[in-house]
Amino acid sequence: MTKKIIIAGPRGKMGNEAVHMVDGDTSFELVACIDRTNGGKQMKDIEGLPTLQIPIYEDPEACFQEIDADVFIDLTVPGAGFEHTKLALLYGIHPVVGTSGFSDDQLEALRDLSMTHGTGCIIAPNFAVGAVLMMQFAKTAAKYLPDAEIIEKHHDQKLDAPSGTAVKTAAMMQETRESKQQGHPEEKETLEGARGAETDGIHIHSVRLPGLVAHQEVLFGGPGQGLTIRHDSYNRASFMEGVKLCVQKVTDLDRLVYGLENILD
Amino acid sequence: MTKKIIIAGPRGKMGNEAVHMVDGDTSFELVACIDRTNGGKQMKDIEGLPTLQIPIYEDPEACFQEIDADVFIDLTVPGAGFEHTKLALLYGIHPVVGTSGFSDDQLEALRDLSMTHGTGCIIAPNFAVGAVLMMQFAKTAAKYLPDAEIIEKHHDQKLDAPSGTAVKTAAMMQETRESKQQGHPEEKETLEGARGAETDGIHIHSVRLPGLVAHQEVLFGGPGQGLTIRHDSYNRASFMEGVKLCVQKVTDLDRLVYGLENILD
Amino acid sequence: MTKKIIIAGPRGKMGNEAVHMVDGDTSFELVACIDRTNGGKQMKDIEGLPTLQIPIYEDPEACFQEIDADVFIDLTVPGAGFEHTKLALLYGIHPVVGTSGFSDDQLEALRDLSMTHGTGCIIAPNFAVGAVLMMQFAKTAAKYLPDAEIIEKHHDQKLDAPSGTAVKTAAMMQETRESKQQGHPEEKETLEGARGAETDGIHIHSVRLPGLVAHQEVLFGGPGQGLTIRHDSYNRASFMEGVKLCVQKVTDLDRLVYGLENILD
Amino acid sequence: MTKKIIIAGPRGKMGNEAVHMVDGDTSFELVACIDRTNGGKQMKDIEGLPTLQIPIYEDPEACFQEIDADVFIDLTVPGAGFEHTKLALLYGIHPVVGTSGFSDDQLEALRDLSMTHGTGCIIAPNFAVGAVLMMQFAKTAAKYLPDAEIIEKHHDQKLDAPSGTAVKTAAMMQETRESKQQGHPEEKETLEGARGAETDGIHIHSVRLPGLVAHQEVLFGGPGQGLTIRHDSYNRASFMEGVKLCVQKVTDLDRLVYGLENILD
Repeated sequence: MTKKIIIAGPRGKMGNEAVHMVDGDTSFELVACIDRTNGGKQMKDIEGLPTLQIPIYEDPEACFQEIDADVFIDLTVPGAGFEHTKLALLYGIHPVVGTSGFSDDQLEALRDLSMTHGTGCIIAPNFAVGAVLMMQFAKTAAKYLPDAEIIEKHHDQKLDAPSGTAVKTAAMMQETRESKQQGHPEEKETLEGARGAETDGIHIHSVRLPGLVAHQEVLFGGPGQGLTIRHDSYNRASFMEGVKLCVQKVTDLDRLVYGLENILD
Repeated sequence: MTKKIIIAGPRGKMGNEAVHMVDGDTSFELVACIDRTNGGKQMKDIEGLPTLQIPIYEDPEACFQEIDADVFIDLTVPGAGFEHTKLALLYGIHPVVGTSGFSDDQLEALRDLSMTHGTGCIIAPNFAVGAVLMMQFAKTAAKYLPDAEIIEKHHDQKLDAPSGTAVKTAAMMQETRESKQQGHPEEKETLEGARGAETDGIHIHSVRLPGLVAHQEVLFGGPGQGLTIRHDSYNRASFMEGVKLCVQKVTDLDRLVYGLENILD
Repeated sequence: MTKKIIIAGPRGKMGNEAVHMVDGDTSFELVACIDRTNGGKQMKDIEGLPTLQIPIYEDPEACFQEIDADVFIDLTVPGAGFEHTKLALLYGIHPVVGTSGFSDDQLEALRDLSMTHGTGCIIAPNFAVGAVLMMQFAKTAAKYLPDAEIIEKHHDQKLDAPSGTAVKTAAMMQETRESKQQGHPEEKETLEGARGAETDGIHIHSVRLPGLVAHQEVLFGGPGQGLTIRHDSYNRASFMEGVKLCVQKVTDLDRLVYGLENILD
Repeated sequence: MTKKIIIAGPRGKMGNEAVHMVDGDTSFELVACIDRTNGGKQMKDIEGLPTLQIPIYEDPEACFQEIDADVFIDLTVPGAGFEHTKLALLYGIHPVVGTSGFSDDQLEALRDLSMTHGTGCIIAPNFAVGAVLMMQFAKTAAKYLPDAEIIEKHHDQKLDAPSGTAVKTAAMMQETRESKQQGHPEEKETLEGARGAETDGIHIHSVRLPGLVAHQEVLFGGPGQGLTIRHDSYNRASFMEGVKLCVQKVTDLDRLVYGLENILD
């Protein structure tokens, strides 16, 4: 059965990708959008959006009230996203929300609301299926091959090193990995920094070069063998596969799930 | 508590590695060996083995009868291995056996014997933890990223292409992957063979070069992203980590487990 | 000194990139464009182009006659490109032309014209500096490590396998490499195609996956070692660095040079 | 014509490999060895060496005087190596010496002696052809793609980071590369060391894991593209190809050449 979908933020980078993804998938039907401006217009009146006869709402509550929908996709900002998600749950529409910005209190509130209404909800900081699989696999491998290092590679305009994904991967690995120092106990850096950053014995190396997009390798070593898990992210299209998967699964849920990894079985 | 271990085939390549591995691990104690010759001698009398005061038996039944042991490691050949394993189970000693050569009937017989006696037993075609994890991860990833190709690389003295591991990996991926053809429907090979071998849509490429040992990459692609899982095997030491893991786990089992992947949780 | 530049085809994909590249480089000055339409307009009148007060010509000869320029960049099609290049040489403007489409006769004619007028000219089938370096390095390495295989990886909408770059790389390697068969003399494909395509003993493997752009690895093996040269092309920006390099060098030349590799010293 | 060869240090790790390499190559003939002990014996009397009727000398001068040879291979230690090499040159035998341990004065003395006698001599710190090609290629690429980082990977028993090869590679790249800082000017390490070591703007990252042998990647990036040059060293066999190449070339030289890169044309 076709799923009826409302999308918030159709002019944002991610929201716009979502509009095109939903529009291009025959098992989905776009039924309305929520936008900070353009209320009362049709999608076809707005530049850069598909020429569809679909209503735009500025007031999310009016949208959820008037429009019959199965799923609500929010790829806006944490503040608006939280309000939208609460309202969608109240109206029995299943939210799929992309953010790492909700506070623990906000998550708790949404978890309760989802449970009370028996309306499934997925909140995910990362929709790239490949990146989430990489982190899951790294967590499993760290149990059996505790010697591991992470190399993450990004374009040279990135400000922070290491990347958030690298830090999160290391944290997930520490859940299963026996705590240990790696390398020779007496190893020396003849050039400072050569052995990278370190967190609980896992070394992290950050490469920054023009041309690169977003790449990460997790390397494991044991006597006589090596295991490497690598993810390459080339563009935002990678996130849409994860959004699609969530839209397919969220209507079968009766409570809130946090993180794409928890719907990959 | 220290585990008492009997090893068969101490002069074989793999058996010899196992002798040294057990000898070097303080949580293990080598208590006897089964050898086709040298019965009645001590290990220290045989060249290439540790200088230990450990008895060598030619008759496996006498060995299992006279020696108090927890685990029996067999890295010999399928014929002898089957007889050894049956006997070990009869005497309540937990077998860890490395072979892909048992027939279904033999496996069934051992499974029954293990169950009847409540004596755990592990039989594994591949003890390289990294290779087994690679195959497991590939199987999981194929569910979400069905577009996949395998590149396996071996030294140039290898006769068969593709490798058994590549074929097995593809078979495992097919258990979870939606069956599909890959590439452009009208793609053409201007040089025959360029797109590699194919099994159910998964392409397999075999590289053979001097210097290489045994390597495999499983590549997954989706819109805007790629996921790669790579295993490098440099030497036989890689198998010993898996043997060690099995020795640690087998005494907690009360039945036969086939395949290292089924004791990795 | 600033170089004055005329560009043909400012609305084409590559020509448009070139307009922006020249506009963004302070050592270059864009002085005119040649376009099939829009003659008499200014660049600022045309959508998608920088808002510059720069004249557009439909007639190339009028353009070269009226405009004082050092370099002419042509990234159009072979037919028009040949005519443009001839005219530019006649007017003493140094052409930088991106095409693999000129016939031997056309190349010969341009070579003569360039020589006669002492006006340097660069014609290149590939402006990606990294790709050209990869091919050069592969040619050199093949002399010392004759066992080699090529793996090229492209998006799954590509029709031909192997890629033109892979075939050209193999051809360049054959100039220096002793002719030899690789792999074990009795190797067998248990799945047809596993060992890839073959040209003079060099095996070529073509991977096609969604998400990929254009990538190639040349692998060399010798006893105990391996050497790999890899190029990743993510987008057209890669070509502009090569165009820039040619614009810088062409005014120092007094004859035609074919191929970017011949200006890399 | 078969080359007659004397080898010093036949029981050392490298010398022993050289003995087997020479013995296995039909264009070479092993005619004598120089050893610190075993003077007067035949090679066949010494354990671990081929069963050949070849004389062993403790006195190098006696050896060079009595034995008719074309090439002398020295893979011993700098002290003895210097004395051996001097003597070989005096007797018109072409030395191939593997060491990075000669002082500038020693090199100067050998260079003079080689020139005076018109007897070619090759002294090389690294005989792995692939490693030398990697450094040469990196030096060339750095001219056109100045944004570069080095990742070197070794087994976890290595004491120093970064490796000597990585430092040497960076130094060679600096000969052609415009000096520049890389990465965003305001980039920040949220975990210290993430961006690795740095030398003149080139970042170097050292990975240490069990199972690894000796590997290095040099990564170059430019707008829209990346170029990677990778060398994998699996065992000492890699050095023998370089020794072989030097033995073939040294008799055509009439002076001293330092570094394998200078005989690769």
